[in-house]
Amino acid sequence: MKFEAIAVENIPLIHPGDDLPSIICMNMELQDRDIVIVASTVVAKSEGEVFRLEDITPEEMALEIAARSEKDARFIQAVLSRSREVLIEKPFMLVTTLEGHTCVNAGIDESNIEDGFLLYPPKNPDVSASRLGKELERLSGKKLSVIVTDTNGRAFKIGQTGAAIGIYKIKPVKRWIGEKDLFGKILEITEEAVADELAGAANLLMGEGAGGIPAVVIRGLDNYCEEDISIKEIYRPEEQDIIKKGLRCLQKKS
Amino acid sequence: MKFEAIAVENIPLIHPGDDLPSIICMNMELQDRDIVIVASTVVAKSEGEVFRLEDITPEEMALEIAARSEKDARFIQAVLSRSREVLIEKPFMLVTTLEGHTCVNAGIDESNIEDGFLLYPPKNPDVSASRLGKELERLSGKKLSVIVTDTNGRAFKIGQTGAAIGIYKIKPVKRWIGEKDLFGKILEITEEAVADELAGAANLLMGEGAGGIPAVVIRGLDNYCEEDISIKEIYRPEEQDIIKKGLRCLQKKS
Repeated sequence: MKFEAIAVENIPLIHPGDDLPSIICMNMELQDRDIVIVASTVVAKSEGEVFRLEDITPEEMALEIAARSEKDARFIQAVLSRSREVLIEKPFMLVTTLEGHTCVNAGIDESNIEDGFLLYPPKNPDVSASRLGKELERLSGKKLSVIVTDTNGRAFKIGQTGAAIGIYKIKPVKRWIGEKDLFGKILEITEEAVADELAGAANLLMGEGAGGIPAVVIRGLDNYCEEDISIKEIYRPEEQDIIKKGLRCLQKKS
Repeated sequence: MKFEAIAVENIPLIHPGDDLPSIICMNMELQDRDIVIVASTVVAKSEGEVFRLEDITPEEMALEIAARSEKDARFIQAVLSRSREVLIEKPFMLVTTLEGHTCVNAGIDESNIEDGFLLYPPKNPDVSASRLGKELERLSGKKLSVIVTDTNGRAFKIGQTGAAIGIYKIKPVKRWIGEKDLFGKILEITEEAVADELAGAANLLMGEGAGGIPAVVIRGLDNYCEEDISIKEIYRPEEQDIIKKGLRCLQKKS
């Protein structure tokens, strides 16, 4: 049992309107059941999610947070425009996005784009993954899964890992409910977050700096799935999220 | 640029005292710069970290927590014996272990072992990784890295992913400080948690249930490193850990 992770090389700098599926197909011969993993930065660029900092007018909440945290109020406004809750204000802004993803700065990026511009994440990463996946399937004639990924920090540890923010034809979580362990005991609910593990695996080739590889194919696993699925099933239901309750508790204190 | 992940197959059920390095070498021809990823369950079993539930005498704190959470006080005692702090008591026990790792039940496992027994994680996973790595290098004559892994849940999302708990000859975090991004801008500190991404990649082949593959080799990446390193550098320093502060805030309230 094995799998390969293959970098899709020679992808040029992507601009709004670029045909990302064609560019990927020109640089990689896809096979049935390949999992095509694409960095959200290039998806967002191709979708034109680029905004000028100077066009953003900070509103009251952004100005208040800026005063407390000494950050650029326009950047904070951008983050708030894509968020439904602020969990931590400083030293970094941890938010839950409109899409339900909890991450720093709502995934808005000041790097890997010209000065004075901000790159927002794709508005609906599942839709982006689906659009990309359908076109890749049409161009290649193969059954494909797609994962759109970002890099995120995590609780209790330093460092970032690749994380899935949008999916197409792959279950985000593999469930081992009711299967037996090595001793014949029925396993309690075990849920393996395969979409995030795949995102992390791809990130080992993607790199964060100038050597960036924005797309990776993972080949040899059997995760292809015809169902209509959303990455949102991976987000912990609010009422079960003790860590969010802890962060709100802290905010009330301060 | 690519890498392969290869399952080490035919590893038998492991018992205390088993020669795990030899068993691995008998089932896999290792190459220079291979990263050998081994599930903590088999490392712990070979190290004899198996204890009978009935031999555990719960002390006061365990009895108190058991009363509040309706769990087996002996199991709680086991968890406390390996923990330095309890962050959440119920519905699951989230602790920081003596080794600094924050996880559920201090990594103590009731599954994948006979009834009435508990499998503890390796006492010092870095030492286990080092011992395993040196012996694998001696047997194979190759330069090797080793990662000992567990599966852990994470904040804000459901599901578990592979996570590194012990390492040998591989940096847990790859730093991209001061490198330039695609536009020549100097990147702020970017730290890629490669040890955890590798653990997640390996877990895609390891599986949670009866099909368990306890060891995976990742081949083709350049992460080999001669330095003396510990996984502990991946744990967020306490004074910077806002999420822990949030959980303590919640505990004070209740």
